[in-house]
Amino acid sequence: MADKILSISRRTRATPFTRRVEAAGVKGYTVYNHMLLPTFCEGKEEDYWGRCQELKRWDVSCERQIEVCGPDSERLLQLMTPRDISRAVNGQGLYAPLCDETGAMINDPILIKFASDHWWISIADSDVDLWARGLAHGFGLDVKVREAEIWPLAVQGPKAETLVSRVFGNEVPAIRFFRSKMLEFRGRKMMVMRSGYSKQGGFEIYLNDAELAEPLWDELFTRGEDLNVRAGCPNLIERIESGLLSYGNDMDINHNPFECGLDAFIDLDADIESMSLPALRRLKDNSAHLLVGLVFNEAMRFADFIIKADDRIVGELRSQVWSPRYNKHLAMVMMKRDFLDANSTVSINGKIGNIVNLPFDFNAIR
Amino acid sequence: MADKILSISRRTRATPFTRRVEAAGVKGYTVYNHMLLPTFCEGKEEDYWGRCQELKRWDVSCERQIEVCGPDSERLLQLMTPRDISRAVNGQGLYAPLCDETGAMINDPILIKFASDHWWISIADSDVDLWARGLAHGFGLDVKVREAEIWPLAVQGPKAETLVSRVFGNEVPAIRFFRSKMLEFRGRKMMVMRSGYSKQGGFEIYLNDAELAEPLWDELFTRGEDLNVRAGCPNLIERIESGLLSYGNDMDINHNPFECGLDAFIDLDADIESMSLPALRRLKDNSAHLLVGLVFNEAMRFADFIIKADDRIVGELRSQVWSPRYNKHLAMVMMKRDFLDANSTVSINGKIGNIVNLPFDFNAIR
Repeated sequence: MADKILSISRRTRATPFTRRVEAAGVKGYTVYNHMLLPTFCEGKEEDYWGRCQELKRWDVSCERQIEVCGPDSERLLQLMTPRDISRAVNGQGLYAPLCDETGAMINDPILIKFASDHWWISIADSDVDLWARGLAHGFGLDVKVREAEIWPLAVQGPKAETLVSRVFGNEVPAIRFFRSKMLEFRGRKMMVMRSGYSKQGGFEIYLNDAELAEPLWDELFTRGEDLNVRAGCPNLIERIESGLLSYGNDMDINHNPFECGLDAFIDLDADIESMSLPALRRLKDNSAHLLVGLVFNEAMRFADFIIKADDRIVGELRSQVWSPRYNKHLAMVMMKRDFLDANSTVSINGKIGNIVNLPFDFNAIR
Repeated sequence: MADKILSISRRTRATPFTRRVEAAGVKGYTVYNHMLLPTFCEGKEEDYWGRCQELKRWDVSCERQIEVCGPDSERLLQLMTPRDISRAVNGQGLYAPLCDETGAMINDPILIKFASDHWWISIADSDVDLWARGLAHGFGLDVKVREAEIWPLAVQGPKAETLVSRVFGNEVPAIRFFRSKMLEFRGRKMMVMRSGYSKQGGFEIYLNDAELAEPLWDELFTRGEDLNVRAGCPNLIERIESGLLSYGNDMDINHNPFECGLDAFIDLDADIESMSLPALRRLKDNSAHLLVGLVFNEAMRFADFIIKADDRIVGELRSQVWSPRYNKHLAMVMMKRDFLDANSTVSINGKIGNIVNLPFDFNAIR
């Protein structure tokens, strides 16, 4: 199947970094939260090998920030997630599945607390603002919900701390994982968090002034030239190897968080008002599916999304990639639990894949 | 700016027609409701000229159907739209802006009534299901909201009636605009409506069985070969010439329906329970913007989305295209009303554009 061109319009929103990303030679995009997300520069594999040594800055503006302000903010957010958010401290990010009253996954954002009456929801790809607006209006909550004018820029790689410190100052190294500080760039304070959609470590700069996008992009280049900083983007191979979930790819509204392996983020016994908890208490130990990994020793393509065994549908393919580092084909598949109870392999297109837990453990599967 | 490749994944959902669309030679997609929407085969202009004589079938599966079932269905839908839906008859489609309690545009779908306790919302590009779920839960309404497994296929062009009649039978010609009938294909009843995102006339077939997608696609070809039927897709040039609005392009959540020229679909005086009506009554005659057309005599590209006059921001570009038929450059722009009150032209990149009402009136502007 030949590559297809993306028709870009106002609806597939550009970002304040897009001109610089284009100048740096981006070749592919996906659309995420109605916004352009660069996906590769040279190629998936070339980018992958480049990335591991290097320092990159990624335009992840499409991680939209849904701002929730007002006295009922924390109540609204707690309704939306089964994770207990009562002990979050100001400046902290919390990975938190959002689930509706049936336990269905609506999104899996990072919640960022500024104060109990001021939060951001740093969303994956679904219009969480609409759900929050609907709930707030229906429940008569005293909150304002809006997509904020914030465009995150990620700096990822082993030398990210060095570079971000050069630009944002010596408070950067003290920022712990999923914690943040308001730091200054050209006289404007913006949030800098130790986070990012990779396992390499790094920071996300939550740009809050579009006019400063190109100066920030450029300054990260000039101050990082000796560190070999480049333009980059999230990389599919690295994502799958790391077992990082992608909402809409690996799971969606048809799944509950137990099926996604997110048990650790559900506080079933907490005394909190969360709309999904009654359903999730019933679903615990009763989910029909589980997201697992499949490992093949040879390169392959699934012919179909549906996975069958003895003519019975036993699961479906969600994401797949060839891992050049490990010489394995890796897939993330949503499998029926009863099949998993009885099988440790599955045959696809005549090839045998080993079923493994996520994230992939390369010491075990090599 | 070179064309960019769309990175396709599970998240940018394929449709049951995708294999056939690919085989027919589609070259470009956009992503619409997290789903692939074909945008061109040969090229925007080539497609445009081809389209006007011909009969096309378009994969518009991305017009997702949000199904609302249950005793409170009509109450929920009336809350969501300021258009009075009380007189809709079964089988009817109603174009209806959806607006929140501030009057903000959430979407501009076709509402399709099957019964007062069973509707579809045939949505433009935003996750209306999440808004509806939030409202329903917050208000404690007795409804079920879900994205239905429906994939619309449009048949557009002057000979559409002939072809659709051949496949779905002699009840087809009697279907009036925005009315529908449940008609049979290979033993399965599905909705056929006289509708479609063009001004050429035609039908949309609301496929409800993915297994029948390729048989339907193929049969529309074999039964329409003498009518010169082809694969097609919505065409940007035709859309702009016809003044068809596109949510996310021409307007978004930052606008109210008066600003989009949708006054005719707002029943300000109706005695209905609609969450946006109080705000809209205040906004009527007090909106800051209006979506209008701009006509230039020469081909051009806007350098920026922002439109300035005397260094003041007076509007913004939303959509633009070169119209080969009329030899004009056409743009849809969201302009400040106070500027419109005092000006009938605007200068962009040193060229003078005439401000006109939408839809474009080619007799007037030629």
